[in-house]
Amino acid sequence: MSFERIAIIGLGLLGGSVGLAVQEFLPGAHTTGFDADPATRARAAARGLVAQVCESAADAVRNADLVVLCVPVGAMESAAQEIATHLPAGVVVSDVGSSKQSVADALIKALPGVAIIPAHPVAGTERSGPDAGFASLFRQRWCIITPPDRADPAQVAALSAFWEALGAKVEIMDARHHDMVLAVTSHLPHLIAYTIVGTASDLEGVTEGEVIKYSAGGFRDFTRIAASDPTMWRDVFIANKDAVLNMLQRFTEDLTALQRAIRVGDGDQLFEHFERTRAIRRSIIEEGQDDARPDFGRGDHSG
Amino acid sequence: MSFERIAIIGLGLLGGSVGLAVQEFLPGAHTTGFDADPATRARAAARGLVAQVCESAADAVRNADLVVLCVPVGAMESAAQEIATHLPAGVVVSDVGSSKQSVADALIKALPGVAIIPAHPVAGTERSGPDAGFASLFRQRWCIITPPDRADPAQVAALSAFWEALGAKVEIMDARHHDMVLAVTSHLPHLIAYTIVGTASDLEGVTEGEVIKYSAGGFRDFTRIAASDPTMWRDVFIANKDAVLNMLQRFTEDLTALQRAIRVGDGDQLFEHFERTRAIRRSIIEEGQDDARPDFGRGDHSG
Repeated sequence: MSFERIAIIGLGLLGGSVGLAVQEFLPGAHTTGFDADPATRARAAARGLVAQVCESAADAVRNADLVVLCVPVGAMESAAQEIATHLPAGVVVSDVGSSKQSVADALIKALPGVAIIPAHPVAGTERSGPDAGFASLFRQRWCIITPPDRADPAQVAALSAFWEALGAKVEIMDARHHDMVLAVTSHLPHLIAYTIVGTASDLEGVTEGEVIKYSAGGFRDFTRIAASDPTMWRDVFIANKDAVLNMLQRFTEDLTALQRAIRVGDGDQLFEHFERTRAIRRSIIEEGQDDARPDFGRGDHSG
Repeated sequence: MSFERIAIIGLGLLGGSVGLAVQEFLPGAHTTGFDADPATRARAAARGLVAQVCESAADAVRNADLVVLCVPVGAMESAAQEIATHLPAGVVVSDVGSSKQSVADALIKALPGVAIIPAHPVAGTERSGPDAGFASLFRQRWCIITPPDRADPAQVAALSAFWEALGAKVEIMDARHHDMVLAVTSHLPHLIAYTIVGTASDLEGVTEGEVIKYSAGGFRDFTRIAASDPTMWRDVFIANKDAVLNMLQRFTEDLTALQRAIRVGDGDQLFEHFERTRAIRRSIIEEGQDDARPDFGRGDHSG
């Protein structure tokens, strides 16, 4: 089996990118889409994010064999409720949310008896909205699929093939493990970045102008992440609360240890720690998960 | 007055870039250089980082009118002692260290009676060593000069002109204020990045392989910063201890507040905070301090 009629609910960065990618890499498939915001629907139609922008979620899903929910994780349940009575038989409902256990719970509750296979493409940029998406967003990125215990293997295989067609590499994972892995690789980094950017903008001895001016010393990297969609991230932290708080506690312990090393002037401990963290960067580049050029290659273009 | 015989002590990323930039943008000036590591001297000669690689610091500075110390801030005092009795009359001694009060203290102590004008070009990449430098490193970046109270204005002007010739924009600042500004724009971000990369590599429930694999969700940005030179950063944190600990305390307070908001599920507080931090990103891009392309433009090339 393979999907031929794809409905996308939510036409922001992720939904728009899925729509564009399907049209580019699965040209035989038909795409419909809906967004609750009329302005987003208008932009989606103008950009051709999907072949057909519908005026309701119900219209968008009526003939679909795959529905991909691309709304913030806190809005998954209500989006599912909106389509519940309009889903055709045999449809698979999936999503792109950044936390998976809470989304699975919400969808199973809202759509009893429907085939639900949650997924999370680990891809994105700091941009959001209907103008932010592009067809190659998922290229060489991982997409984690978290099928519930009783999921149909044929449907899981079809969803895997779908994401692979869009350029992604697929991994199957338990939802709870996904939430722990993403808490450390994505959610904690975002929380830290949001925090430090807030701290920097709120000092009495240093002006915001100075912070901006001298941001090339490291700070600017954090501002990119902290420019991500506030609604999406509010929902992620609340949806994945337990894993995030757990990781945050470990981070705080480690930070306290380095703070103490600075206070007592323990250069050896600092050096040992800083030396160790270099190796991870090398591995990330070797596995094709980041750009090897110094400074992300920014020097080649910026300024 | 302008400088015509530039001696560079320390031929890593910064020293090498100064040497290459002088040769490209001030072709009339003569450059000499020294590095304590013989292997670095050999690479420096092979790459032509300076016109003349010397076998001792004394030889490098003997005829200089400007000496630029490009060693880790913890090595400034011993580097200064090494050249103390070999400096010609009228020479200006400067540096590129990331903390300024401690460097000023060390140089004034080691070089009594010598004209000392510390400086800090806010530029760099995560690479280090004699192969990392390039001539355009300082283009459009700020160089902060922190002249002591009794500095000769003509010498300060000459040093400003020197950095402007290398492509930098110059700002004059009090050393103590510099240290506070850089604590927040550079030192704290590096400490946080080093911490989180350490935390992520040391979890029992998530493997290092998983952290690397799914790093595109945000984590990879931190690994770039945490790949910076361990010796340099060990020295910076110890040299600028007071300002770093001060900023760290504010950061921890802010993080605790967000942690509490997550724990109690206060979405409004999270949203308000995340919304506010977006504006800073816009300003940094408007001021030309970062690349406007999403994801630093990485998507255009990587993977």
